[in-house]
Amino acid sequence: MTGTTSSPASERLASLIGESVDLRHAADVIEWDERVYMPPGGAPVDGEMSATLRRLAHEKFTSSAVGDALETAGAALAGADPDTDEARTVTVTRRDFDKATRVPSDFVAEQARVVSAAQHAWGEARAASNFAAFKPHLERIIELKRQYVTFFPAADHPYDVLLDDYEPGMKTADVKAVFDTLRTRQVDLVRRVAERPQVNDGFLRVPYDEKALIDFSVEVISAFGFDFARGRQDKSIHPFCTSFGSDDVRITTRFVETYPLSLLFGTMHETGHALYEQGVGPRYQRTMLEGGASLGVHESQSRLWENIVGRSRPFWEHFFPRLQQRFPSQLSKVTLEQFYRGINRVERSQVRVEADEATYNLHVMLRVELEIALVEGRIEASDLEEAWDSRMREYLGVTPSNSAKGVLQDIHWSAGLFGYFATYTLGNVIAAQLARAFRAQHSSLDEDMRRGDFSALLSWLRSNLHQHGRKFEPRELVARITGGTIDPEPYLEYLEEKYLAVYA
Amino acid sequence: MTGTTSSPASERLASLIGESVDLRHAADVIEWDERVYMPPGGAPVDGEMSATLRRLAHEKFTSSAVGDALETAGAALAGADPDTDEARTVTVTRRDFDKATRVPSDFVAEQARVVSAAQHAWGEARAASNFAAFKPHLERIIELKRQYVTFFPAADHPYDVLLDDYEPGMKTADVKAVFDTLRTRQVDLVRRVAERPQVNDGFLRVPYDEKALIDFSVEVISAFGFDFARGRQDKSIHPFCTSFGSDDVRITTRFVETYPLSLLFGTMHETGHALYEQGVGPRYQRTMLEGGASLGVHESQSRLWENIVGRSRPFWEHFFPRLQQRFPSQLSKVTLEQFYRGINRVERSQVRVEADEATYNLHVMLRVELEIALVEGRIEASDLEEAWDSRMREYLGVTPSNSAKGVLQDIHWSAGLFGYFATYTLGNVIAAQLARAFRAQHSSLDEDMRRGDFSALLSWLRSNLHQHGRKFEPRELVARITGGTIDPEPYLEYLEEKYLAVYA
Repeated sequence: MTGTTSSPASERLASLIGESVDLRHAADVIEWDERVYMPPGGAPVDGEMSATLRRLAHEKFTSSAVGDALETAGAALAGADPDTDEARTVTVTRRDFDKATRVPSDFVAEQARVVSAAQHAWGEARAASNFAAFKPHLERIIELKRQYVTFFPAADHPYDVLLDDYEPGMKTADVKAVFDTLRTRQVDLVRRVAERPQVNDGFLRVPYDEKALIDFSVEVISAFGFDFARGRQDKSIHPFCTSFGSDDVRITTRFVETYPLSLLFGTMHETGHALYEQGVGPRYQRTMLEGGASLGVHESQSRLWENIVGRSRPFWEHFFPRLQQRFPSQLSKVTLEQFYRGINRVERSQVRVEADEATYNLHVMLRVELEIALVEGRIEASDLEEAWDSRMREYLGVTPSNSAKGVLQDIHWSAGLFGYFATYTLGNVIAAQLARAFRAQHSSLDEDMRRGDFSALLSWLRSNLHQHGRKFEPRELVARITGGTIDPEPYLEYLEEKYLAVYA
Repeated sequence: MTGTTSSPASERLASLIGESVDLRHAADVIEWDERVYMPPGGAPVDGEMSATLRRLAHEKFTSSAVGDALETAGAALAGADPDTDEARTVTVTRRDFDKATRVPSDFVAEQARVVSAAQHAWGEARAASNFAAFKPHLERIIELKRQYVTFFPAADHPYDVLLDDYEPGMKTADVKAVFDTLRTRQVDLVRRVAERPQVNDGFLRVPYDEKALIDFSVEVISAFGFDFARGRQDKSIHPFCTSFGSDDVRITTRFVETYPLSLLFGTMHETGHALYEQGVGPRYQRTMLEGGASLGVHESQSRLWENIVGRSRPFWEHFFPRLQQRFPSQLSKVTLEQFYRGINRVERSQVRVEADEATYNLHVMLRVELEIALVEGRIEASDLEEAWDSRMREYLGVTPSNSAKGVLQDIHWSAGLFGYFATYTLGNVIAAQLARAFRAQHSSLDEDMRRGDFSALLSWLRSNLHQHGRKFEPRELVARITGGTIDPEPYLEYLEEKYLAVYA
């Protein structure tokens, strides 16, 4: 069926896993449909459908048949090269299988109930800006997270277990080390920038035509290399990327009339994810090696295309005249330099999803620190709002105007997603490492971008990163490409050089 | 979960069946997606996904767990009213279960292989207009159909078994009786019409704007009562209707620039199907009672809205001025009478899918007669082309210009669909019976249509037909509504009155 199988045991495993992957993808198709085209009345039935598919996918994946096939396939490979596709398929499937079977189904059901109620309560609490109304739900979720950790072998740090769900093999110590380096220098950079005169981006706060903006974004992502024969773009309320294997990868976008950057950079961001998915080796289709290595590595791709490429001056040297042509009334009197500075405006804001490249990590950092403290038991839910607000002042120099714009702003905790936030920052950091590694081999990147040519970059990412899918864990992947560990230095240098110049 | 369940045994059955329905609907969503939005590269993966879903849906439905639940639920209902929703759910599920479990899975697999090869060969044979190239495949399919019949208890006629897959409870004798009445009078009607001067429809053979035509068709189907909160309309190469339960029903349409009727009547046709699906009782969702009673009853709805309503004069008294407004250059000089006659032009053509209302049944009749003769063994595949051509001359007075426009024109036989064609004619016949029954209670139908008001008709169809889903078999349903059997008389009278006037 795929190039990853060879022994009969591996074939048997591939056939069982293929079925479970099909069910998961089917649920993904239905969830894409729900968010893009489904008529409103269809929601309840579609909800039941996707719940059934997810349950059956889980049942198939955690069945004793898969367990047996893993044993047999593992035994057949004993002593062989552990890095072949066949061996790695067994290793990765084994890792996922162990994780999936360690958690009792009673716990999974209870967590689903708690999260469902918590998400509802969070929505109401946020609308009323009332943290107290959400607190009991959050307390229950924290309890469950602490309990979840106990299902796994003792780790160096209990938070490792949570992190591992999104970043296989990543340790709390790694994340802390990255943040410790980032914290001082990034807080300092933002403070220095804030002291300088603000840049003007008024020309980005006027109405732009949707159709013309979408056409422009399609021109950009086609140049990036998004393959429309193996993907499509639609509209949805929240932009996302989903894939049903590397040959059908879909992104969505959102239009905000008086803020064109939302569509522009949102599209580049999702395209970064999509290019990764479209680049995964076809031999991994319907195996546990398809998809990206981790959320952080995935985010490295979206951030690389959105920020390092899409917010760079060489990129706009090529594309700004084209954008001006489409929007003469808004942009004909704006210079490239004004535009470049406008799209890189830094603001010390309260809300993460509105944060710019220079401040984003500070928002993430405070969340991850609070999560670690909660898991360690150093703080409780009742301490959260105060801890949040004091860190906001310390890192960003702002105080949330209310709970809705503070501790209640994100959906993640109500959804039970602990360990997730760190992946955003890891993505930024890895993106800069990849860009540096690429430039070391291809010094002409800026020249390429000035010509609108991204083929060398994409092809390098394809062969060094994309094609491997989930074969390697994040740290292993970074080591293979950069020869080192996950290191925030290139990112800090990139930020400092760029923003001290923008705010020169 | 639904209003149809009450005893614990019925609840258990409902839960098992609900899961299998979810899987089937998921496959339906994926197949809708394939035909409407999927990027071309996604085809192979989507194909595997939907094959897995169909296989699992079948496995779930035919499992011993369902067999046991049917036994228990049936026993719990012994002696109770057999017509309650609960009892009928068990009866219909039992009927489907028995049919699905009688056919050995080896046979199903073999048939799938044969059909797959046959469809490919049919496509090539049709392109080359070479029946001989398709004949060996057809022979194998005929063998399989004869074998299929042997898996079931002896019926009055072997063709009954095939018919029953599309028209539960319908007998070959019923179909023959309908066709015997239709044949003479409809052949005669078409001959009389052909002797009169042809009507002019030149104004329908010029370019029409797609957007304006779609807007108009949306106006029409909104007036019919299509609920866009529980459905949607998209474009596809071949128009179709699909539903994932009554709250998510989707139709597609096709635009042919120089033949606006294709989009107009195609949309009304699919809307007829959709109104049926949207009207099925919500209590039947995720049970075997959801959906339509049979293909024939389904077709009665599409034909009723497309032909009896959509090709009527009163309908166009309301809508023609509106159409003229949208297309002044094409229609401002056309009178209502000219338009009405133009859309009801009769032509003795070779190809079924291009046939008009007056000739359609004759195309169907010859196919059904040939299928019956094949199943009886009175003819073989090698006799088919000659038998086809001679009937075409007899019924329609035309000789196919080649095999592609004759015996090879339809996909059905290559797909193993024997017993299917009759449902088109049954649909026409039942549609006319329903219209007559409705007019007997609501003499103002024409007046309603002149005002663009279809609410009384839809509401009558909802309460007499739609809401029952698959609870009653087609003959039972017709008896409940009309007090009689499936009777071609109303249809013949409708046709004769209408077409002798159009061609007066």
